[in-house]
Amino acid sequence: MTGTRQRATAEMVARRANVSRVAVSRAFNPHTSLKPEKRALILKIAEELNYTPDRAARALVSGRSHLVGVIVPDVCSHWESQEIDALTTALQNEGFATLLFKTRTDYSMDERLLAYMRGFNPDSVIAFVENVKPTTLARVLGRAVPIYVHYPHPGSHGGPVDSGGPLYDRLNVLQHDGIEQAVALLQGYGAQRIAYVSGVARSRANESREAMLRSVMAERGLPPPIVAPGDFSYDAAFNATIDLFRIGKGADAIFAANDVGAFGVMDALRHELGLRVPEDVKVVGFDDIAQSHWKSYNLTTVKFDLDERVRALVRLILRRLAEPSAPPLEETLQTRLVVRGTVG
Amino acid sequence: MTGTRQRATAEMVARRANVSRVAVSRAFNPHTSLKPEKRALILKIAEELNYTPDRAARALVSGRSHLVGVIVPDVCSHWESQEIDALTTALQNEGFATLLFKTRTDYSMDERLLAYMRGFNPDSVIAFVENVKPTTLARVLGRAVPIYVHYPHPGSHGGPVDSGGPLYDRLNVLQHDGIEQAVALLQGYGAQRIAYVSGVARSRANESREAMLRSVMAERGLPPPIVAPGDFSYDAAFNATIDLFRIGKGADAIFAANDVGAFGVMDALRHELGLRVPEDVKVVGFDDIAQSHWKSYNLTTVKFDLDERVRALVRLILRRLAEPSAPPLEETLQTRLVVRGTVG
Repeated sequence: MTGTRQRATAEMVARRANVSRVAVSRAFNPHTSLKPEKRALILKIAEELNYTPDRAARALVSGRSHLVGVIVPDVCSHWESQEIDALTTALQNEGFATLLFKTRTDYSMDERLLAYMRGFNPDSVIAFVENVKPTTLARVLGRAVPIYVHYPHPGSHGGPVDSGGPLYDRLNVLQHDGIEQAVALLQGYGAQRIAYVSGVARSRANESREAMLRSVMAERGLPPPIVAPGDFSYDAAFNATIDLFRIGKGADAIFAANDVGAFGVMDALRHELGLRVPEDVKVVGFDDIAQSHWKSYNLTTVKFDLDERVRALVRLILRRLAEPSAPPLEETLQTRLVVRGTVG
Repeated sequence: MTGTRQRATAEMVARRANVSRVAVSRAFNPHTSLKPEKRALILKIAEELNYTPDRAARALVSGRSHLVGVIVPDVCSHWESQEIDALTTALQNEGFATLLFKTRTDYSMDERLLAYMRGFNPDSVIAFVENVKPTTLARVLGRAVPIYVHYPHPGSHGGPVDSGGPLYDRLNVLQHDGIEQAVALLQGYGAQRIAYVSGVARSRANESREAMLRSVMAERGLPPPIVAPGDFSYDAAFNATIDLFRIGKGADAIFAANDVGAFGVMDALRHELGLRVPEDVKVVGFDDIAQSHWKSYNLTTVKFDLDERVRALVRLILRRLAEPSAPPLEETLQTRLVVRGTVG
């Protein structure tokens, strides 16, 4: 067991390798540049001496923990797992590690969970308003400035970040273009009765998605969507679709609040209601997760690009760490329609 | 911005709340018991004074970081995301946070990544042998004893942990029973030519799954499986299935190395090859991930219970922290068949 050996100091490594103390620090930071041979030599000597930089000690001096907290209700939802995966890779390349915090199943975070999170002293925290409000998070976080994913409402197209309240940064997702393209395609193929299978009712993402769909449909002369209540899950969308046709009057097109919901919609249409997609009912999703190209679904969906999203989040983290007291920062992303086999 | 306020100490909080210094510590640890009113009072005063326990400082004194590293190649694979989700919830309840480390796409970890991981000083690390070997991990970890998920080979049924090498703990997954039940069911419905759509070739999980299938089939008087090479992904299994029928001589039953592979197999059979499941070809998967009950798949699969798995991992972590120099620890889990609609 190596744990019983005594730890060496950075100075001891620097002396033995005949390099500066700074070079030793750089060798352990994956995002600094250093000649490969020099890095290899330092790491070899560090290993021989059983030296490792202690981030706990460094954090006390530098005030940085190199930890980025990500608050999610559900790691195993497809959208979130793909986000966490890409974000972990990108953060690792910048020398940060991803620290996961799970909210409760009702999406809330209580005081204990917030105090617990603060104890890890993260450098940054990525959150959604439905999980924890900026005013609550600011109260319990020390120096970290949180980043919120924000869905501007119809007409606002982003707009300036509110001043006054606690400091936080924003990733704005503009849903208008992708949703307009989806509605235009449905109209182009003759859809008249469009239903919306919703996400969790009080989620901001769901509220703004529904409001945007409603506004786009009105602009294009369509009646408002028939709303079938889901909760972003496969099972709820499956059941909502059956109710829509067995209790309600059905629809000739369904817009689901997310792709996983769209899969539930399609399976209910095909396997329970005996309807064909897209011949009898057209289906559109939102997200473009990896599963959407699977042949059983082959889903037409509004894409919110994962790589762009992660790059924007990492930029916000690095900009904020460079300027801790800068005014609110923003990054803005567009959406667009990816056409596959469920409309046509 | 609250970050500019000065931090209070635990002593200041204890004095104001008229409680002991120990009670203040306990209030911030979700898994210690404390009267709810007392906890609420302490947390309220801590908030007023802007006090938070600093884990970095505590880690220097206690030698514990309260961080558990999880090394994964792919957070967004279904199996791993469900594992991370359940594990994060369970660890959070015990006062630990989950720190994610991603291996490279070839499943390897290089020296830089290992040194980087060590820098966070995790209390425990959960790993797979295909990602990083115990001898390598022991060299770079300080005091943490890693936990490996282990698939004993046919006949061994677990067996004692090797002595001699570096200290590590083990979660043994016994695949025999579930695989035997699957083969018996396929035989019972008349399958003669069974194919195995594999995982990543050099993965231990894949090797032992294939060896177990081979051994069970031989015991039951069946010829060896036809092997179609996959890599645990939907796309590779999809293509392997098409090759199996278009280049090879096909099969009347397919055992996939994991559920996601089984979805690729089914979509290739139905949507590319025009075959019916289960009438023309029967399909069995491995894992029982959440998607396996979706109506488009409704997969018969060998279950490796998620809740049991997470409970066993958490037990190993807590047992090891209680006794850092105990001999190798083990937990052992069984598998069983979950029968749905793809065999019959």
